[in-house]
Amino acid sequence: MAPKLLSSTNFKSLFNSVDTFLFDCDGVIWKGDTLIDGVSHTLDLLRSKASSLSHSGKNIVFVTNNSMKSRRQYAEKFRSLGLTSVTQDEIFSSSFAAAMYLKANNFPKDKKVYVIGGEGILEELQLAGFTGLGGPEDGEKKAQWKSNSLFQHDKTVGAVVVGLDPNINYYKLQYGTLCVRENRGCLFIATNRDAVGHMTDLQEWPGAGCMVAAMCGSTEREPIVVGKPATFMMDFLIQKFGTETSRMCMVGDRLDTDVLFGQNAGCKTLLVLSGCTSESNLLDENNKIEPDYYTSMVSDITKLMDSP
Amino acid sequence: MAPKLLSSTNFKSLFNSVDTFLFDCDGVIWKGDTLIDGVSHTLDLLRSKASSLSHSGKNIVFVTNNSMKSRRQYAEKFRSLGLTSVTQDEIFSSSFAAAMYLKANNFPKDKKVYVIGGEGILEELQLAGFTGLGGPEDGEKKAQWKSNSLFQHDKTVGAVVVGLDPNINYYKLQYGTLCVRENRGCLFIATNRDAVGHMTDLQEWPGAGCMVAAMCGSTEREPIVVGKPATFMMDFLIQKFGTETSRMCMVGDRLDTDVLFGQNAGCKTLLVLSGCTSESNLLDENNKIEPDYYTSMVSDITKLMDSP
Repeated sequence: MAPKLLSSTNFKSLFNSVDTFLFDCDGVIWKGDTLIDGVSHTLDLLRSKASSLSHSGKNIVFVTNNSMKSRRQYAEKFRSLGLTSVTQDEIFSSSFAAAMYLKANNFPKDKKVYVIGGEGILEELQLAGFTGLGGPEDGEKKAQWKSNSLFQHDKTVGAVVVGLDPNINYYKLQYGTLCVRENRGCLFIATNRDAVGHMTDLQEWPGAGCMVAAMCGSTEREPIVVGKPATFMMDFLIQKFGTETSRMCMVGDRLDTDVLFGQNAGCKTLLVLSGCTSESNLLDENNKIEPDYYTSMVSDITKLMDSP
Repeated sequence: MAPKLLSSTNFKSLFNSVDTFLFDCDGVIWKGDTLIDGVSHTLDLLRSKASSLSHSGKNIVFVTNNSMKSRRQYAEKFRSLGLTSVTQDEIFSSSFAAAMYLKANNFPKDKKVYVIGGEGILEELQLAGFTGLGGPEDGEKKAQWKSNSLFQHDKTVGAVVVGLDPNINYYKLQYGTLCVRENRGCLFIATNRDAVGHMTDLQEWPGAGCMVAAMCGSTEREPIVVGKPATFMMDFLIQKFGTETSRMCMVGDRLDTDVLFGQNAGCKTLLVLSGCTSESNLLDENNKIEPDYYTSMVSDITKLMDSP
């Protein structure tokens, strides 16, 4: 069914059929370090019990593929942008998902986790009781390209987690590759595979999909993906809110992650055009991923809630 | 047909049906910086017009996927290992192939080529009359992860060449990605896609396949591959030696590059077990790439030529 432009009529039916709104962050809530206009008021309205449409407020959750920060660090970012009501519990980042995947699969506490990615992954691993290594501290290391050079790696590494890494280098790729190729049973986990993302307000830059693909190229293995569009995080959301996925709506700016994630999980889906997808991308005949609804930005919800 | 272990009987028939032997280098001629035993004598024998098997010597060519060096630099490496008879003309590296691909396709001289890889690619580009940028000099550069940061790239870049790069970093991946995504018609050329290679004598490390895959991940494009197993270089070899590919034998240590390259081009194929493929890899039931012949190392040829 072709995606519908969100209108005051179909919004009311969407609103009444949903208990929980899941929001992507980058391109939906903010762009880089800039809050998108009207987001704060819209979130307050959705949460409010006194809206004209409903007697009970909606649950709000943020589901982000960006693994650079931990949940705690994301809560700080929300606060710094003036969204002071957002709590850590409402944030589901792919850094958190990576740690939860290991926990859910009883990853042995005496094994280590090698990280290609940011501090956020290491922090979530530590909070979950795992020992991480690598990450930012390997950012300046170099492999020795000498004829008799033997690259030593920790044989107790049982998982390599790969996410967005602004300090990607040969040393980390070599370390991760050796672990995956040579440590028996070593897991290869990707936080997500986004090709690009709005790392700055002005431009799309290579995303975790770049680093993950590099590891696929050298290991000849495919990763376990824990971020969107994989539905791994959905089990946590269902448990947290005790609601069915059919009563959730995923709001995002990307077809291949956000909308596909919502669809894979059985949620309703709303695409906003404030991020990386334009209306012409959406309506292009080659696009096969169609949200239920689309609108220009999150704050359109405010206008629709206020309309008679 | 199952691969045959090279014997004095089948070697004579192979020898008589071939005018040109194509050799891979790493794992065949040398490992890292160490010459493999007996190679020098074997090459001399094959070239010699006075062998017991033949009145005319064989043509010898070296076809390497390693793009770190130019043909000139490879000739120096051969000399430094004592193989003083090898000339630059006999060496076909993927760095040379990248430059020849641009030349063969009339790449405009006023467009530039961005390089993710080593000095060898830049040198071959320059020799072919093209303007390269990037490569080693971008090894220490960093992208500015600031909210208002705009990453500037040269809009006249019309091709990005990606090869093995020990100094791969986010800056280069970002530069190459922007060129491929934003410069209209920009080519994405891979020297090769080897997952790993013997960068040192002792270990296999990530190969160009790692950097190429990273660029695939961020650009969502597939590259034009000029190295093995693509047969692009074969046109040059046919022209140079005026011989049919059916009278060539590709000698290599890798199934997915060397043997496949030989097969794709219609050559006879000989696998040596002195590099990255073991006999059990070769004979594994999951292996689908079967050479005509296999033997432990190049110098076995000497013994077979000397046998009655």
